[in-house]
Amino acid sequence: MSLTVVGSIAYDTVRTPFGARERMLGGAATHFALAASFFDQVRPVGPVGDDFTDEDLAILATRGTSTDDVERVAGGKTFFWEGEYGWDLNSRETIDTQLNVFETFEPKLSPAARACDVLFLANIQPQLQLDVLEACDGPRFTAMDSMNLWIDIARDDLVKVIERVDCVILNDAELRQLTEKPNLIMAAREVLSWGPKVVVGKQGEYGAALITPTSYFSLPAYPLENVVDPTGAGDTFAGGFVGYLAQNTDGNPTDEALRLAMAYGTAIALIILQLPYKYLPVYQR
Amino acid sequence: MSLTVVGSIAYDTVRTPFGARERMLGGAATHFALAASFFDQVRPVGPVGDDFTDEDLAILATRGTSTDDVERVAGGKTFFWEGEYGWDLNSRETIDTQLNVFETFEPKLSPAARACDVLFLANIQPQLQLDVLEACDGPRFTAMDSMNLWIDIARDDLVKVIERVDCVILNDAELRQLTEKPNLIMAAREVLSWGPKVVVGKQGEYGAALITPTSYFSLPAYPLENVVDPTGAGDTFAGGFVGYLAQNTDGNPTDEALRLAMAYGTAIALIILQLPYKYLPVYQR
Repeated sequence: MSLTVVGSIAYDTVRTPFGARERMLGGAATHFALAASFFDQVRPVGPVGDDFTDEDLAILATRGTSTDDVERVAGGKTFFWEGEYGWDLNSRETIDTQLNVFETFEPKLSPAARACDVLFLANIQPQLQLDVLEACDGPRFTAMDSMNLWIDIARDDLVKVIERVDCVILNDAELRQLTEKPNLIMAAREVLSWGPKVVVGKQGEYGAALITPTSYFSLPAYPLENVVDPTGAGDTFAGGFVGYLAQNTDGNPTDEALRLAMAYGTAIALIILQLPYKYLPVYQR
Repeated sequence: MSLTVVGSIAYDTVRTPFGARERMLGGAATHFALAASFFDQVRPVGPVGDDFTDEDLAILATRGTSTDDVERVAGGKTFFWEGEYGWDLNSRETIDTQLNVFETFEPKLSPAARACDVLFLANIQPQLQLDVLEACDGPRFTAMDSMNLWIDIARDDLVKVIERVDCVILNDAELRQLTEKPNLIMAAREVLSWGPKVVVGKQGEYGAALITPTSYFSLPAYPLENVVDPTGAGDTFAGGFVGYLAQNTDGNPTDEALRLAMAYGTAIALIILQLPYKYLPVYQR
């Protein structure tokens, strides 16, 4: 099948207790695409500026990923994020966000991107996620991510997106905030009642939980000693999860397929957790 | 085998988003003993005051637990704790702690308590834990809990206790704080290097992880929708874990026994999570 992902392609400056790196290739669509490309033909949709290098575009094109829908905005600058992690990597503070080309981004999907079998809406403004859903020609399986900001300032739009997708992938704290339910199971059941068939609650260093109307599955994270930078781990997990489903199901995944997808997402996230980002080219091996 | 536990027997006033209850039977030794008594002959050691009721003593004596080492301090008041939980039950604030009879507590173990096969040192001052270790006649298996307060103000004594026990059961955040290692695996390996054979990292709603020098095992918590009060869940887990080991091993538990013990601890904690404490008598059924 073919897999379209809409989201940010970015440069990230990240400080951890182990060091700092400036302007590394990042962004939700980037991390998702690199992970999903192990499984399927991926097509990232998103804007970059004049400062986006050919070298980074080549990394994005790893394993046959099509970069035809990466929109180069003349005179623009690529989305930039700067953040700093606490000593145990469990908390992080945003130091700077420069939307740049994302400020005026309107997804323009090519016919090939619209014709995708599987669609992943990475964390962007819910109204843009709705526009993309409208533009696509009825993908067989749709999944999405979001963040606390959109729950705070665009909850109505966000709920409209959720009502239309098959699978919601959010942090467990976001699921609780979104539904105002105090625990993960209650929160997931509420989201399922809005329409989706599958909810994944990402739990950071603890792993992830999968909730469907009839089943529950929890997968602990792999115990790593050498985590250096968690940025992008959630998007990488989503890329492995959705990528596996795109490759191995017809859009109606069984419980067994969903559980295997959880394992693939967890395993691929191990790569990103142990790598300072400037080494993203490792994916090209 | 026989199991001695030294720790607090208390009255707790707890406020949750679902209501408040005053002066419920609580304390680490109480929760541990009620859970462990499913498996073995338990003997809690700890002081109570004149205000401790016969009804509560009878609850503690459930399933053959011996209360001979529960010391009634004439003119004293029972340890009291008051706390309030946040809306998702993941954070709590201590509103009042009255040490009362614990201020001058010196464990006086009866010959039967000293002759225990298995010893659990619940969360009390590390110097008292050391005194109890000295007083016992060489139990086959020793386990312990502690808390952030003792890491802050009595770390040297705490490390001396850890060096002498077989099993350390702490929250994952406490393991990181204790060892100043940023992740659970590094922290657990550090603790293992001090002497213990087994480290259990309690992870609250996420479950628990078991680390030995040669193995790692992670068990997610059971997905509950109706958690009403998490107070005592960690001690109840420890009671199920250590109780199972006391009943089913000779003090040198195999990996398989340790993993089963994790499952029993997790399962028994379900009872306490779903019960407002005034219903502790449910244990008597």
